[in-house]
Amino acid sequence: MTTPMRAEPIPFTSDDYATRMARVVDDAVEAGLDGVIVTPGADLVWLMGYRPTAITERLTMLVLAPDERPTLLVPILEKPDAEAADGAATVRIVDWADGTDPYTAAGRLLRPNDRFGISDSAWAMHLLGLQSTLPGTEYRALSHSLPMMRAVKDANELGRLALAGEAADATYGEIVQLRFAGRRETEVAADLARLLREFGHEQVDFTVVGSGPNGANPHHEAGSRVIEQGDTVVLDFGGLRYGYGSDTTRTVSVGEPTIEVSDVHDIVARAQQAAFEAVQPGVSCQEIDRIARATITEAGFGDQFIHRTGHGIGVTTHEPPYLVEGETQQLRPGMCFSIEPGIYLSGRFGVRIEDIVTVTDSAGERLNNTDRALRVVD
Amino acid sequence: MTTPMRAEPIPFTSDDYATRMARVVDDAVEAGLDGVIVTPGADLVWLMGYRPTAITERLTMLVLAPDERPTLLVPILEKPDAEAADGAATVRIVDWADGTDPYTAAGRLLRPNDRFGISDSAWAMHLLGLQSTLPGTEYRALSHSLPMMRAVKDANELGRLALAGEAADATYGEIVQLRFAGRRETEVAADLARLLREFGHEQVDFTVVGSGPNGANPHHEAGSRVIEQGDTVVLDFGGLRYGYGSDTTRTVSVGEPTIEVSDVHDIVARAQQAAFEAVQPGVSCQEIDRIARATITEAGFGDQFIHRTGHGIGVTTHEPPYLVEGETQQLRPGMCFSIEPGIYLSGRFGVRIEDIVTVTDSAGERLNNTDRALRVVD
Repeated sequence: MTTPMRAEPIPFTSDDYATRMARVVDDAVEAGLDGVIVTPGADLVWLMGYRPTAITERLTMLVLAPDERPTLLVPILEKPDAEAADGAATVRIVDWADGTDPYTAAGRLLRPNDRFGISDSAWAMHLLGLQSTLPGTEYRALSHSLPMMRAVKDANELGRLALAGEAADATYGEIVQLRFAGRRETEVAADLARLLREFGHEQVDFTVVGSGPNGANPHHEAGSRVIEQGDTVVLDFGGLRYGYGSDTTRTVSVGEPTIEVSDVHDIVARAQQAAFEAVQPGVSCQEIDRIARATITEAGFGDQFIHRTGHGIGVTTHEPPYLVEGETQQLRPGMCFSIEPGIYLSGRFGVRIEDIVTVTDSAGERLNNTDRALRVVD
Repeated sequence: MTTPMRAEPIPFTSDDYATRMARVVDDAVEAGLDGVIVTPGADLVWLMGYRPTAITERLTMLVLAPDERPTLLVPILEKPDAEAADGAATVRIVDWADGTDPYTAAGRLLRPNDRFGISDSAWAMHLLGLQSTLPGTEYRALSHSLPMMRAVKDANELGRLALAGEAADATYGEIVQLRFAGRRETEVAADLARLLREFGHEQVDFTVVGSGPNGANPHHEAGSRVIEQGDTVVLDFGGLRYGYGSDTTRTVSVGEPTIEVSDVHDIVARAQQAAFEAVQPGVSCQEIDRIARATITEAGFGDQFIHRTGHGIGVTTHEPPYLVEGETQQLRPGMCFSIEPGIYLSGRFGVRIEDIVTVTDSAGERLNNTDRALRVVD
């Protein structure tokens, strides 16, 4: 694997944002919504390229509705930042001032008996304020009402995800050259973060180093444990490059693995490959989860695969579609998600293998490609 | 101002967290609530010392209610982290698994017709899930129903805030020695961040460098503008040290200031001092805002003071109490907040002066103390 050398992506244009806003309105109407309310975070970044300095208790919300110009309500002192956003040209910006009621201002933008999709991570405080000011309105979380709003990526977005994946590949290519035995997990994690940044990430979201028994806790980050000869180590790392996410997991062995570790790794690799090969348009999300789980269950480790098979990725490293039992949404070309089965043997070790996969017109395509074999490190 | 040299704070104990949880239950009952629902973020850190690796779409919530053991619902794969939290001893931890409905699990912890306070920043998605699963329940944002939940600090907390203030003072003492003219705002901001870390901050939340006309936008962070001789520069910086916040603003002049800049700075300094001197138990939050505003309005700049006078600070750098018109809450000993009036002359320059102030039994006491005069820098 070589250093990522692709060209920089083309900046998103005002038209790109306008197109996204128009598509969301169409999808909202089709989903039985009268409009969409978007609050700061990933949805607002994606829809208008606007990321307030901080997400605070001050209400900011973008309202999208049919036959209305998109309108952003902002605290007056954040208006200059909002006006400078890349997608601001399409948007009417209105403000409210400290000492006045933001929900009264918001109420002027909403019809009193409409049904809205609202960003998942909108603050409960704000939702309660809207519900109280306009008791006739109804709300649905966007991940339930428009779950696939950001799920299908365009070519520019796919290019950015591929650039992030290349950087993750390059990071893995370097980390396995470094020493593991005798160093703390946190030291290896710091190396992962440094490498992700060196290979172009502007943001590092997670650097999991789960050595020995810590690898059996899938959400362990990195601790003070000193990695020992003979350990199995789960490395799960990612962040954002050009605004789009990477998320890769590989499991390495410090010195030669035992037969048990090799066998467990082989089962996880087969589950990951089987799930990957099942990817094509029209297959349901839960079907991919079932296929990964079946391989692991048949091998006798079903109870040790204690999480879903994957999650979408885009302007965040965790978003719809979720590859989980109960998610009947069908895969569509342009969707991007992780496939990351694992086996966790409590108190002993864990194994997980994760790639980011996109759906082409006929199959799956991995956006990170570094070696999936059980690598022996020093 | 010298390098902060105070001793490290004493760690919070399991008893500290238990005391906080018990107090919140008492306050909730008094406020007409049947219980409190706390989701990841500042409230959960403060109540049980638990900060999940990431705040995600997976539901985590702590339920506090009279005569019930505090109960934390967590995704099963985050249970080990939750169990390791400093305040976990008092708490019963229950889990839910991917592929099951978290709101059904949550519903088992809530009585179906109760009224709950809920963390402001709880996700709308989760609130909608609870409302749908238990339609008889009612919810109030904690900042409306228990606004002062975290507002009164104990001695250990006050000590940490003072340590953060000392570090901010030391940072300012160093930054004014450095060159301003000819450097970009972002370079000075990077110096501020570096200094805050050198003086013990584990997290930098903001490093505003608003030079010349950028200083007239109170939420400008730092941009590519090259600072010029004659500029007025607003420096607003802070973050967390030992888990508690700093937030200081000083305005400097690159070379000798004009008479206009000196005059505006003097008005802001008088407003800040008048507001500070008015602090004592029993005075309302809005009264402090009115006093700062009156000084500025009398000087003819009322329309150029476009934000509230201050905000509380603790485990976050923005929390109740808010010093704003309409906030009738009375100050109590142990409360901590910023006093930060400003004047913003659009397209030209801005001036703001900010200190963190705590309420003693009889008056206000500043937790950062570096010189408030208009400092001339190179």
